Amino acid sequence: MIKVSVIGATGYAGAELLAILYRHPQVNVVHITSESHTGKKISELYPHLNHLYDNELESLKYIEAIGADSDFVFIALPHGHAMDVGRKLKDLPTRIIDLGADYRFSNVSVYEQWYKVEHTHKDALRVYGLAEIYRDEIRNAKIIGNAGCFTTASILALAPLAKHHLIDVNSIIVDAASGVSGAGRSPKLGNHFPELYDNFKAYNVAHHRHTPEIEQAIEDLSGMKTVINFTPHLVPMSRGILATCYANLSSGISAEMIEPAFQKMYGNEHFIRLLGRDGYPETKYVRGSNYCDIAWHIDERTNRVIVLSAIDNLVKGAAGQAVQNLNIAAGFEENTALDVVPMYP
Amino acid sequence: MIKVSVIGATGYAGAELLAILYRHPQVNVVHITSESHTGKKISELYPHLNHLYDNELESLKYIEAIGADSDFVFIALPHGHAMDVGRKLKDLPTRIIDLGADYRFSNVSVYEQWYKVEHTHKDALRVYGLAEIYRDEIRNAKIIGNAGCFTTASILALAPLAKHHLIDVNSIIVDAASGVSGAGRSPKLGNHFPELYDNFKAYNVAHHRHTPEIEQAIEDLSGMKTVINFTPHLVPMSRGILATCYANLSSGISAEMIEPAFQKMYGNEHFIRLLGRDGYPETKYVRGSNYCDIAWHIDERTNRVIVLSAIDNLVKGAAGQAVQNLNIAAGFEENTALDVVPMYP
Amino acid sequence: MIKVSVIGATGYAGAELLAILYRHPQVNVVHITSESHTGKKISELYPHLNHLYDNELESLKYIEAIGADSDFVFIALPHGHAMDVGRKLKDLPTRIIDLGADYRFSNVSVYEQWYKVEHTHKDALRVYGLAEIYRDEIRNAKIIGNAGCFTTASILALAPLAKHHLIDVNSIIVDAASGVSGAGRSPKLGNHFPELYDNFKAYNVAHHRHTPEIEQAIEDLSGMKTVINFTPHLVPMSRGILATCYANLSSGISAEMIEPAFQKMYGNEHFIRLLGRDGYPETKYVRGSNYCDIAWHIDERTNRVIVLSAIDNLVKGAAGQAVQNLNIAAGFEENTALDVVPMYP
Amino acid sequence: MIKVSVIGATGYAGAELLAILYRHPQVNVVHITSESHTGKKISELYPHLNHLYDNELESLKYIEAIGADSDFVFIALPHGHAMDVGRKLKDLPTRIIDLGADYRFSNVSVYEQWYKVEHTHKDALRVYGLAEIYRDEIRNAKIIGNAGCFTTASILALAPLAKHHLIDVNSIIVDAASGVSGAGRSPKLGNHFPELYDNFKAYNVAHHRHTPEIEQAIEDLSGMKTVINFTPHLVPMSRGILATCYANLSSGISAEMIEPAFQKMYGNEHFIRLLGRDGYPETKYVRGSNYCDIAWHIDERTNRVIVLSAIDNLVKGAAGQAVQNLNIAAGFEENTALDVVPMYP
Repeated sequence: MIKVSVIGATGYAGAELLAILYRHPQVNVVHITSESHTGKKISELYPHLNHLYDNELESLKYIEAIGADSDFVFIALPHGHAMDVGRKLKDLPTRIIDLGADYRFSNVSVYEQWYKVEHTHKDALRVYGLAEIYRDEIRNAKIIGNAGCFTTASILALAPLAKHHLIDVNSIIVDAASGVSGAGRSPKLGNHFPELYDNFKAYNVAHHRHTPEIEQAIEDLSGMKTVINFTPHLVPMSRGILATCYANLSSGISAEMIEPAFQKMYGNEHFIRLLGRDGYPETKYVRGSNYCDIAWHIDERTNRVIVLSAIDNLVKGAAGQAVQNLNIAAGFEENTALDVVPMYP
Repeated sequence: MIKVSVIGATGYAGAELLAILYRHPQVNVVHITSESHTGKKISELYPHLNHLYDNELESLKYIEAIGADSDFVFIALPHGHAMDVGRKLKDLPTRIIDLGADYRFSNVSVYEQWYKVEHTHKDALRVYGLAEIYRDEIRNAKIIGNAGCFTTASILALAPLAKHHLIDVNSIIVDAASGVSGAGRSPKLGNHFPELYDNFKAYNVAHHRHTPEIEQAIEDLSGMKTVINFTPHLVPMSRGILATCYANLSSGISAEMIEPAFQKMYGNEHFIRLLGRDGYPETKYVRGSNYCDIAWHIDERTNRVIVLSAIDNLVKGAAGQAVQNLNIAAGFEENTALDVVPMYP
Repeated sequence: MIKVSVIGATGYAGAELLAILYRHPQVNVVHITSESHTGKKISELYPHLNHLYDNELESLKYIEAIGADSDFVFIALPHGHAMDVGRKLKDLPTRIIDLGADYRFSNVSVYEQWYKVEHTHKDALRVYGLAEIYRDEIRNAKIIGNAGCFTTASILALAPLAKHHLIDVNSIIVDAASGVSGAGRSPKLGNHFPELYDNFKAYNVAHHRHTPEIEQAIEDLSGMKTVINFTPHLVPMSRGILATCYANLSSGISAEMIEPAFQKMYGNEHFIRLLGRDGYPETKYVRGSNYCDIAWHIDERTNRVIVLSAIDNLVKGAAGQAVQNLNIAAGFEENTALDVVPMYP
Repeated sequence: MIKVSVIGATGYAGAELLAILYRHPQVNVVHITSESHTGKKISELYPHLNHLYDNELESLKYIEAIGADSDFVFIALPHGHAMDVGRKLKDLPTRIIDLGADYRFSNVSVYEQWYKVEHTHKDALRVYGLAEIYRDEIRNAKIIGNAGCFTTASILALAPLAKHHLIDVNSIIVDAASGVSGAGRSPKLGNHFPELYDNFKAYNVAHHRHTPEIEQAIEDLSGMKTVINFTPHLVPMSRGILATCYANLSSGISAEMIEPAFQKMYGNEHFIRLLGRDGYPETKYVRGSNYCDIAWHIDERTNRVIVLSAIDNLVKGAAGQAVQNLNIAAGFEENTALDVVPMYP
């Protein structure tokens, strides 16, 4: 049994993390923090946790003590706040899994440019927390920068193609759509129920912060400088991300060369289900689970490949991936607490 | 380890049953049947089960062999079909948990009157499968007639009041609402997406078949002949039932006498969460779980009590309850495979 | 052509009013106010009004001037604010249609008790703005207290039965459900998209402020002191109210006596569509229109009548009704600007 | 007053057409046909039309007589059936507006290749019914092949760029999403409520039949042979289409050259609302209306333009466009019956 704490548990990713950790047989949740609700019980904020979690919410003020009492600390704070926690825990043996963006970039200036804040923990020993690609680095990391939700779906869809040079990486266009839980739990007009119901829209076109995160991974895999288009959309539903990824096939690449690349990279991956050529992932097929379902289509008229991938944004796109990273880092079976059947319908 | 089979797995209750049984450590699913899709893999019909169930669907024609190879058989067929299975298995040691209505009524003529079919297995040794009320009878039953979805929510809401004579049972009005999964997986115009979206309606007013099932339990608990009103509504959502139950307080009954009745009956029940007086259950607080959340309100102006209860219609209202019954009947811990955190949001 | 102004146009009822008035051939909208957005264009707050309304939002500070420039003033402010406007305009010829609760009660103390504010315009010459029942009074009223949304559906469902003494008015239970637009446009956690999606709940049980408004009308129609139960529920949809109304039939009343009462009262009403005995109104059948669809069921086992009625909460339950009242008060055809086909699907 | 008939009124486009024609002051609807429901009243199939349409549904068998009695005939039949009607009416003065695909292609072999049926009315005098582009041709056409839903949104988004050679037309990728009403009213598993709720998916990737229709218009406007990618998605909502269109800017084209192209082409168009650079159309802003809202974004990192356009698939994408075409062809004001405020929220 190890001891873990959840810093910032009142957002949806934090709540999902508690749900997953509840079924983890090797983990004790020892501290849960919330600045806005310190002193309350978590089940007052999330009545679905009644009878399941009785913890009282603590304050981040005592992060050093919390850290000292925890083998792992999950951080589910808005970006810009995790690096403070990271600095304060840097001399403790505690390891960190950050669900935000602070530790996702190997080049800190990219972070500063897109997130418009100064990075205050530039020398952190960190790895990018996308297990299917960086598993070995995650194993011994001090700080794991858990991959973002859209980025997880996008990178997993494109990685085999980028790695094996099957596509022109600068032709990549990722058109993705997410359920509203991805926007967090703070009420605002844009997420007010009647505004979104029977409505569909794009947002942050050409400026979404997941863009450089996808580019970083594609560059890393392909060895090529990469700029892409990424466009997120908001779907009137609670959960789920579908990424529709377009790329021009490299010259000389035929349709038959696509499947082996996916098989080679993901054939043994527990959480990736390949639906094959001409398959159709649906977000509901993975809802509540840590799966990423992937399929691809070849358009011979335009010589493009279209890869579709579906995840649950709060699980494989956040809390599930964080626990997967924990399992790797702590030496547990990678699927512990994550082997759940998607909730359908 | 015991061996169980699922007869009629292609409806939503059957699929939910497979999802729950997947995490049951003492159960092997050995046979799954479907007449309309015999020979296919269950994951072809339900792609969310990819990598989880590889079973090929068998035919009910071989029910005797399936029965002989199973310790328990779950039946998830339309009403009128389970009694055939029951008769065919009556001399085998196999025990039966029927998710339909065939074995729910102690008075077979009530069944025949409301369901308009002749009952062909009248002498079946059967018990009503609502564990919180009939746990002892379930333990050794040959056939368990799993309680219906609306009825589970309604009976659990009213049982303590009926049993302790706190209400006039003939004043009971149950106004309930369900998500669309309760209507099954067969497409029809009434459940076609655009027809239901942004829409709300009642159906089967004064004639829904769950009416006599609620009456049977209230009569059993109160010892009084009972007729009630039950009105179901269809909510444009996938899952969940909320029952809003009205009754006149019996003369001399005060608001303070309500809570002790609930505490006495449910204080130790694992799957009932009492939210207390003036609480508000929401279907999403129990989604995907076997919980029934209950709260009550007293209107002193009208001298009525209003009890609210929420369940997931496919879990506590169907497959979860069935596994709870299995656990009791098989001597397992009652919450085995059922101790899941509700999926929120 | 008359001149009208809309006081408080930034809520959903105000926006719906603008949409209806846009197609009114005898009305000019001359002033629109908003305190929170004074100086902005209404289409900045409501982009669906682009190219349709260019008005700049004015401040309530100039209400006297606005009043002097308007034949009619619609007030769509939170309760407690309309009476200030009413007082300030009391010596002007301007007539007032208030969409809020301030002028709905003939007995001001009922208002004060349920709304917890002192009424500061007790001697206002006002009528209750439900045209099918109070048409004659509306014709010459100075102030029209437009009926509430749940109350419109409930009263129209029960009025013929109450008026003709077909039911025991103290047995009335109204169980109703509304889309989320009824809760207004201010974002809060309870109406945050992911919280409500795939969710259903009751609220304000035994305490909703529409209760005394229904009682007032039933008393007025039946001549009997009345207390009822009214329970609202929130449906994960944008628009629509369905009221399911229960009452015990009076002694000696048979099923056949119900229809004539409805026919007599509503046979010539333009906006009431009687679906008859055993009919099923659906909120989508009236969406976007000023219709109220009504049907009834008789349960001979319990001797109760169940009346179902459906309206669009923002049209017949608010803005449409307000324009219907305007048409009556201004001497226009009652259906001017209101004769629209419901939007389906 | 002219006389019009609706052939095939029981699908959603047909019902929407009836709703729009109801408010058309210069049109009498004289015949409505349905093969599956001949003899019924349209309001039995669509109760929202109660009190509005009393017409009895006739049979297509009498199409010649219906044609002879109609100035215009709208056809809302599945593809492959309109050409039969067209042939039968070819010698009558009746003019035809077909909402399906049969008359959309100038090159019949493209139709035959994508729709897999032989075209039996190859010499029809037909025009493509997208008024903003082909208005002059529509004016005197015998047969108008009303533009498809996805195609309307896509072509209107891209037309100014294609026409003024601002983009590389072969780099076009259209990623679009539609509400479920676009799939018609026939129930099937894929559109069964619980299957789609909280779900998002792509379909017909690289094979959707709207692809060649978009290509035809882009070729026509640009003068360049064009192949594009078009990917439709299904959104769990009733109505609305958003098209997200990507294209590489031609060499030498700067961001400032985009707006003038849109202004020039659409500045005087009644039904196109330009939201400008960096704007965000939402499907709900146009719901129930004939508007097409358009905005564009320039990504200087990738040198791509991203154009967003939103329509109501049943209005500007089908029935509204058909009436707009009627108005042009019959010499009415183009916005007659179409000047409605979008329904929000």
